[in-house]
Amino acid sequence: MDLSIFLTYLAACGAAAATGAMFSPGEWYDGLKKPDWTPPRWVFPTAWTTLYLLSAVAAARLSAVEGNAQVMAFWAAQIAFNTLWSPVFFGLRKIKAALVPMAGLWLSVVLLTLWAFPLDIWSGLMLVPYVIWVSAAGALNLSVVRLNPGESG
Amino acid sequence: MDLSIFLTYLAACGAAAATGAMFSPGEWYDGLKKPDWTPPRWVFPTAWTTLYLLSAVAAARLSAVEGNAQVMAFWAAQIAFNTLWSPVFFGLRKIKAALVPMAGLWLSVVLLTLWAFPLDIWSGLMLVPYVIWVSAAGALNLSVVRLNPGESG
Repeated sequence: MDLSIFLTYLAACGAAAATGAMFSPGEWYDGLKKPDWTPPRWVFPTAWTTLYLLSAVAAARLSAVEGNAQVMAFWAAQIAFNTLWSPVFFGLRKIKAALVPMAGLWLSVVLLTLWAFPLDIWSGLMLVPYVIWVSAAGALNLSVVRLNPGESG
Repeated sequence: MDLSIFLTYLAACGAAAATGAMFSPGEWYDGLKKPDWTPPRWVFPTAWTTLYLLSAVAAARLSAVEGNAQVMAFWAAQIAFNTLWSPVFFGLRKIKAALVPMAGLWLSVVLLTLWAFPLDIWSGLMLVPYVIWVSAAGALNLSVVRLNPGESG
């Protein structure tokens, strides 16, 4: 694994993480109805930190594999959609419109993972928690929309 | 150029473009002092649309070239910083803090372009307008910070 390539992908994750930190849950979000299975708040930064690290390692590993053109494109797409989601949901409070970047994030992470497996099984495995997490995040976004019908800007 | 790879990179650009559209200049920004050389407002969406298209074409071309691992990582980093900037500047109105994603964007675009040239001269040339534009955007961000000392959150 090339360190400079890993650090470049980690910097991209840092940009996505910054939106999560700068556009974070507050009083408004606390006041919304959420499903019973919503994880406690401390889980989110812990989970994201882990997922960003794993995805940057996977990106650096996949970088070194032949036939990786499409998988690297999916990686770039997922980090852009990831960076977009928090500002739309927590910044603009457009919980319904946030389903669009969430769908883009989910799709690009799923395709990234599916494409990663045949290229490098370890990268594929490292991305599985990300698929699970964005699936849960998507379900949570959708539940919040359904439980708070008055909130859709 | 592979169409599916091009469209994936274009989708990443779409996420970045969405922050530009959703977090856009309004009354608050109009009220800020700006340098004389600030381009008229219509230039911005026109320029960004052109730059996104060119950068997606360059990404798809570079995807097909050997030894592209670092350059693709720079591409991923620049699109994440790009997506981050508008929400920080126009969303949070943190014009000083926005210099951080702007610096990340500038650096990743410059490195992307420098790395692109030896791999594919056409991709390098297609990225030159992006370097010029983010240099101007960085200078504009810095000028706005200096001209509006009361605005730094």
